[in-house]
Amino acid sequence: MQLEFLGTGAGSPGKFRNVTSTALRLLDERNEVWLFDVGEGTQHQILRTTLKPRKITKIFITHLHGDHIFGLPGFLSSRSFQGGDEPLTVYGPTGVKDFVKTSLRVSGTRLSYPLNFVELGQDGVIFEDATFKVSFQHLEHRIECVGYRVEEAAHPGELQAEKLKAMQIPSGPIYGQLKAGQTVTLPDGRTINGQDFIAAPQPGRIVTILGDTRQTPNAVSLAKNANVLVHESTFGKDEGKLAHNYYHSTSTQAAQVAKKAGAQQLLLTHISARYTGKLAKELQKQAQQVFKNTKVVRDFDLIEIPLVTKG
Amino acid sequence: MQLEFLGTGAGSPGKFRNVTSTALRLLDERNEVWLFDVGEGTQHQILRTTLKPRKITKIFITHLHGDHIFGLPGFLSSRSFQGGDEPLTVYGPTGVKDFVKTSLRVSGTRLSYPLNFVELGQDGVIFEDATFKVSFQHLEHRIECVGYRVEEAAHPGELQAEKLKAMQIPSGPIYGQLKAGQTVTLPDGRTINGQDFIAAPQPGRIVTILGDTRQTPNAVSLAKNANVLVHESTFGKDEGKLAHNYYHSTSTQAAQVAKKAGAQQLLLTHISARYTGKLAKELQKQAQQVFKNTKVVRDFDLIEIPLVTKG
Ligand SMILES: [Zn+2]
Ligand SMILES: [Zn+2]
Repeated sequence: MQLEFLGTGAGSPGKFRNVTSTALRLLDERNEVWLFDVGEGTQHQILRTTLKPRKITKIFITHLHGDHIFGLPGFLSSRSFQGGDEPLTVYGPTGVKDFVKTSLRVSGTRLSYPLNFVELGQDGVIFEDATFKVSFQHLEHRIECVGYRVEEAAHPGELQAEKLKAMQIPSGPIYGQLKAGQTVTLPDGRTINGQDFIAAPQPGRIVTILGDTRQTPNAVSLAKNANVLVHESTFGKDEGKLAHNYYHSTSTQAAQVAKKAGAQQLLLTHISARYTGKLAKELQKQAQQVFKNTKVVRDFDLIEIPLVTKG
Repeated sequence: MQLEFLGTGAGSPGKFRNVTSTALRLLDERNEVWLFDVGEGTQHQILRTTLKPRKITKIFITHLHGDHIFGLPGFLSSRSFQGGDEPLTVYGPTGVKDFVKTSLRVSGTRLSYPLNFVELGQDGVIFEDATFKVSFQHLEHRIECVGYRVEEAAHPGELQAEKLKAMQIPSGPIYGQLKAGQTVTLPDGRTINGQDFIAAPQPGRIVTILGDTRQTPNAVSLAKNANVLVHESTFGKDEGKLAHNYYHSTSTQAAQVAKKAGAQQLLLTHISARYTGKLAKELQKQAQQVFKNTKVVRDFDLIEIPLVTKG
């Protein structure tokens, strides 16, 4: 599981940062990639990575500002042009379907794969299967805007084969029964409870990706105990008033969310063109004064999200 | 007057060519730039040139395929974001207004400048003022598609001041009368006819930019005596059947249009990703066998279109 940043800028594309798009790579977990927002030029950025458009099966849109959606029609068309036939679902605020459908209709585009839309209603769960759950809550932006929380199911503990071998229990079908937690009587008369030989389950990972927002309690709730929180930082520490008026956040405010939520890592994105090079590092330092494990990400940064084994 | 190529590829953006957009720089002539087609990422390409979005006052769309229009909403938004307040007019087939209006409405974008639309009807003139005239005719593509012919008015001949001075006629207000073609009697009694001292007018330039098309007589008519013809070359010499079936042209067909039309220069664009590097040169050679002054253009090529002085 990795986060790959395809666009980390705010508002308009700049020379160093494209407009917003973030890929959550779930290749090991489900042989899929999920995109969060698709600013113009996202398909161009993807060309410079190893991502395959046909592996992208879900797209989550935080809000409908142009810098978060204008790359959607082109990405969807090129995915088709390249022969993708796997279904794709777009989740987002009401209006996203109108925008995409109009773009495809006017351009005479027929997709080679089924395209589904889930427009957001009340805060809650919008996707859930055996291994992943995605929920959303509304944030505070000039237009309807949400944040997404992706939760992986816990990984069941592994069978401790070394421990069994040390007890001279020969491998075979019996290991399967033990792994299933059953109690087994061996030919030599010993009785073994599988539960005693299964390691503690590994908790699933939590990744929170927020759209543009000013301070709101929902940000903290979405980021509760997250392994990684992706938060916008359009403004610097001393620009709280500007941030509030423009419905955005400062570096420090983002860090406070991470701290209150008990998140493990904070990744700052949606960086204004006013903060280039060293100035972006400044945003990072400001946030680190509140929340140590903070990084201002750049286009093409790849962040590994490891499983954490519990004691 | 120059042509600046912002995207010279076909269908999907590639590593070497972006999707279609061509800028006609009329900075000396009218302090304006006109865009022909706006594929996704055109605003990103513009960032790498000296073009200023606010100078772009007219956009001509040849057809509504995604690779020719998906950059329009983003370009229009960023032009506004950068504070442009000069009016802008978009010319194109019916549907372009629906696409742009939907994109701007859904994204909550309010432009800082007046945006006008002229949707195309019957073939003919769609813009004309004292110095430039633009007309269009329909081509043959899978969807409605046109080509544009831009005609500059003739430049009136300059007053031949050297010739007057050689005749000992002192400069002064009299030169203005002579330039206006009047007959003037000098203090020394000589009678001078201004007409005899005005150089031949310089013919205005003609630039023809076609959308995607298979062979059609209208292409020749649009390119009649053009200084420059910009023509697609999606296919190579031996792919005439493919070109016909997909409503595109081969290199050789483009050259035949230039030849029949008596054009002075042929610029081939809309190059497929199948033709990279040396293979693109191959397209050029094929065309040159029919029409010598041919060039396959690349992204960021800048082609000067000089005034031609007659006799
Ligand atoms: Zn934004
Ligand atoms: Zn095309």
